[in-house]
Amino acid sequence: MEDTATILHSIVKYKGTQPTDLEDILAIEEPLEIKIKHPEEGPGETHTLAVTMRTPGEDEALALGFLFTEGIITSPQQVDYVEAPFWTPNSITVHLQKGATIKMPDQKRNFYTTSSCGVCGKASIEAIKTVSSFVINRHTAPVGMDVIYGLMDSLHHQQSVFSTTGGLHASALFTTDGTLAYLCEDVGRHNALDKAIGKALQGELLPLKDNILLLSGRASFELLQKANMAGIPIVVALGAPSSLAVQTAQSFGITLIGFLKTHSFNIYTFPERIK
Amino acid sequence: MEDTATILHSIVKYKGTQPTDLEDILAIEEPLEIKIKHPEEGPGETHTLAVTMRTPGEDEALALGFLFTEGIITSPQQVDYVEAPFWTPNSITVHLQKGATIKMPDQKRNFYTTSSCGVCGKASIEAIKTVSSFVINRHTAPVGMDVIYGLMDSLHHQQSVFSTTGGLHASALFTTDGTLAYLCEDVGRHNALDKAIGKALQGELLPLKDNILLLSGRASFELLQKANMAGIPIVVALGAPSSLAVQTAQSFGITLIGFLKTHSFNIYTFPERIK
Repeated sequence: MEDTATILHSIVKYKGTQPTDLEDILAIEEPLEIKIKHPEEGPGETHTLAVTMRTPGEDEALALGFLFTEGIITSPQQVDYVEAPFWTPNSITVHLQKGATIKMPDQKRNFYTTSSCGVCGKASIEAIKTVSSFVINRHTAPVGMDVIYGLMDSLHHQQSVFSTTGGLHASALFTTDGTLAYLCEDVGRHNALDKAIGKALQGELLPLKDNILLLSGRASFELLQKANMAGIPIVVALGAPSSLAVQTAQSFGITLIGFLKTHSFNIYTFPERIK
Repeated sequence: MEDTATILHSIVKYKGTQPTDLEDILAIEEPLEIKIKHPEEGPGETHTLAVTMRTPGEDEALALGFLFTEGIITSPQQVDYVEAPFWTPNSITVHLQKGATIKMPDQKRNFYTTSSCGVCGKASIEAIKTVSSFVINRHTAPVGMDVIYGLMDSLHHQQSVFSTTGGLHASALFTTDGTLAYLCEDVGRHNALDKAIGKALQGELLPLKDNILLLSGRASFELLQKANMAGIPIVVALGAPSSLAVQTAQSFGITLIGFLKTHSFNIYTFPERIK
């Protein structure tokens, strides 16, 4: 892998009760806008086909593979060249051969809206900031590390289907004293979180300002922005956070914890909320 | 969890060199179309906001959570009722209160095209069948189980960034003798696969009829349909496959293997390709 794939970030690592300042390596997550251009069309006319959250590197292969696996192009001969200028690193344009017949996706059937979509991470974060009704209070009372260590036990006791199939993600909402409020499971991790926040919405409990969100897998940008929409101040993941998840947590005032294990965890942002 | 979340499936489990017929529990993956309806509009006028691949159960919470975390609704008071008739289990309609002011997503910026989008799994599979240029030969020469066991070693030797960050998915293409052709990594697993298939496309190697695809995580519908587009006959996942991944593999003639470990693996479809 090229070094566009990772970045260093300062963390506080708890081993047992002992915090240490360290550097951790994060996988980079950035949006890529995939566009196509017909040679018959004017210079400004391009069609955005997708915005995907990806790790930079091999963008040309990603764009071509995406166009092929989505059935839009059927052979490399339909492509004239791929334009990926270094001054717009989050946008790539596939220029088609003259006369190439491609199959444009049926927008009516084939769209999937997601707030992960912004042309660059910065723009997305700014966009969400204006949308969210809640501001996370940066000076909440700290939560004991024993509460954080206790979350995993609760999850493992409750998450029955995950244990039987190994095929589901879980999102669990706890109160800051470690009591489980909602646990939701799904093959899609964003769905598991939407279900948990949806239940809290139905219960008229938003904003979730005295709650901790536990994620059974990794923490991506999309999950952090959803947590922010619900006003959750502490997000704990059993897996790794991405670079954009950490930036998003930093930007919104969310304490982000990753790699929660029985006797250790890493704090990526706002460590002062854990005591 | 309700029993809408899992389903039983017959598998062949290899422990060492010994195959055994067993039943395995799969997490269910099915599409859900999320629609909204304004009371001021006519009876047939609804707006599809998203099609998401989800595990059935808690669909109402999922739909409301999605609308809230995407910034479309801001409070439960904007919703009159949610309609989820049992005869259309993969579609849900959120009926808004009269006069409710909601924020419709900006389609221009916020769409993400994906072939996971069909109103029901069956329809999607049929749709892909017409799109794919390649038909997978159901009578390819069998591959030795030693090749399957050898894939994980190759992946672990090569997948450097995954080992350092724990934050990336990998997709690796091997020839049927177990030689690594391409290894691609990404925060998004569909991106890792698009990169690998994109590289094969650039090398004019499609269809990948003598290749094995190894996935570092779980196997979802979307990954299986992408494998089918590239004509790959054998897909091996280190994690669990979803119900729809298994159905898709069955429908296309793909051998799907899950839970690959040092001394065991499960074959979900077409076990005759492994000897």
